[in-house]
Amino acid sequence: MAGIRAAASGLVLLRPVTFVTGNAKKLEEVRAILGQSIPFHSLKLDIPELQGEPEEISKEKARLAAKEVNGPVLVEDTCLCFNALKGLPGPYIKWFLQKIGHEGLNKLLLGYEDKSAYALCVFSLALGPNVEPVTFVGKTMGKIVPARGPNDFGWDPIFQPDGYEQTYAEMPKAEKNKISHRSKALALVKAHFAEAGYIFQIEPSTQGD
Amino acid sequence: MAGIRAAASGLVLLRPVTFVTGNAKKLEEVRAILGQSIPFHSLKLDIPELQGEPEEISKEKARLAAKEVNGPVLVEDTCLCFNALKGLPGPYIKWFLQKIGHEGLNKLLLGYEDKSAYALCVFSLALGPNVEPVTFVGKTMGKIVPARGPNDFGWDPIFQPDGYEQTYAEMPKAEKNKISHRSKALALVKAHFAEAGYIFQIEPSTQGD
Repeated sequence: MAGIRAAASGLVLLRPVTFVTGNAKKLEEVRAILGQSIPFHSLKLDIPELQGEPEEISKEKARLAAKEVNGPVLVEDTCLCFNALKGLPGPYIKWFLQKIGHEGLNKLLLGYEDKSAYALCVFSLALGPNVEPVTFVGKTMGKIVPARGPNDFGWDPIFQPDGYEQTYAEMPKAEKNKISHRSKALALVKAHFAEAGYIFQIEPSTQGD
Repeated sequence: MAGIRAAASGLVLLRPVTFVTGNAKKLEEVRAILGQSIPFHSLKLDIPELQGEPEEISKEKARLAAKEVNGPVLVEDTCLCFNALKGLPGPYIKWFLQKIGHEGLNKLLLGYEDKSAYALCVFSLALGPNVEPVTFVGKTMGKIVPARGPNDFGWDPIFQPDGYEQTYAEMPKAEKNKISHRSKALALVKAHFAEAGYIFQIEPSTQGD
C-alpha cells in the first residue's frame, strides 16, 4: 500500500498526512488545535463534493482524496444544521450562505419558533487509497441569530453557541477553539492518532510545508 | 470508442441510449414524450450525486454513467428553484422534500413576499465515455403554493405553473406534459436526435427493455 508499511510496533506512515483544504482560516484553526502532534501539510484539491448525509459525504471525499494523493489524507466538512429544518441546510450551507447570505439564512427560519441549530464538523482520515476512512464528528449546539461580529469566516456571525452571549464571530479565537464543532472533531482526530500510535517515517522528499 | 462508429452518413450508435433512472414515474413521462423516436432502455445506476450548479451536476453524472455503461447515456436531474432564495433549494430539493415536506417548503418562504419559483429539468446526453456531454435545459415558471392534488410525485402538489389554476399534481398527465420543465427539456433532446441524425445499428445482444 502506497505510503504505509506495517511494523511490529504499529503502522508506519511514510508520508505526512495531507490535510485537504483551500481555506486558510480552516488550516489556521487546525494548526492551532493539532499543534505539532501530527506531521501534516495542506493541499488544495479539486475533489467533487457529493450530496447526501454528512458522514457519507466526508468518507467519499476522503476516498477520492486518498486516491489522488496516493497517501494518508485528512478531509474536513462543516455543516450548519437547523433543527426546524431537520438538519438542513446541513451540508449545503455553503450554497445557501453564498446565495442568500446571513440575512437570508435568518429569514428561512421566520416561519419557525425553533431557532436552534447545531454546527457539525466531520473529519475523515484515510490512511491511503483503498483503506476505509475513519470518521470523527464534532457537534456544537446553539441558535441562529441576526449577524453580529466580524464577517470574515462564513456563517460564524449568525451562530451563537449555547451558554454564550457572543456569536462564534464575536468570540476570541482561543475561546471559540475551546468549544467549537471543529475543535471537538479535531480532539477526536488527535486522540485517534495518540491511540493508534502510527509511526511516521517521513521520506525527506515528501516532507510537507 | 465503445458503442459508437463514424459513418459517411453520420454517427452510428451500436447500442440503445441508456436512460439512467430508478424512478418509474420519470421513465413513464420520458416514454410518453419521446415515444418511439429514440431507441432507449432504462437502468437504475448508483451514480454519486454532486453539489454545484445544475448543469455541472448533470454533466458530471452523464460522464460517470457513460463510463459505467460504456455506451450512450441520458441522465436527468430536476431542480425546484425559489426566486426568493436565488434558485435554492434547486438541486437539493430532494433532501428538502424528504426532510421537511410540502409544508416545510412552503414555510421556508413565509418570510418572503415573493413565492415565485421555477421548475428546472436538465438532461445530459453522453454518447460514450470520454465524449463531452451535451446538455438540454427545460424551465417552467410558476409559484409555490400549499399542497393540492395527489401526492405521488415529489413536489408536484406545491408547484403551480404560471397561467394555470392547478398545481402540477392536479393537472391531467397529458396537460402537464405539454408545459412541464421535463417535456421542454425532452423536446430539445428529441430535436437534437433529429438534427444529429445518429444512426442506430443496435446489436441484438444489447437490445434494451
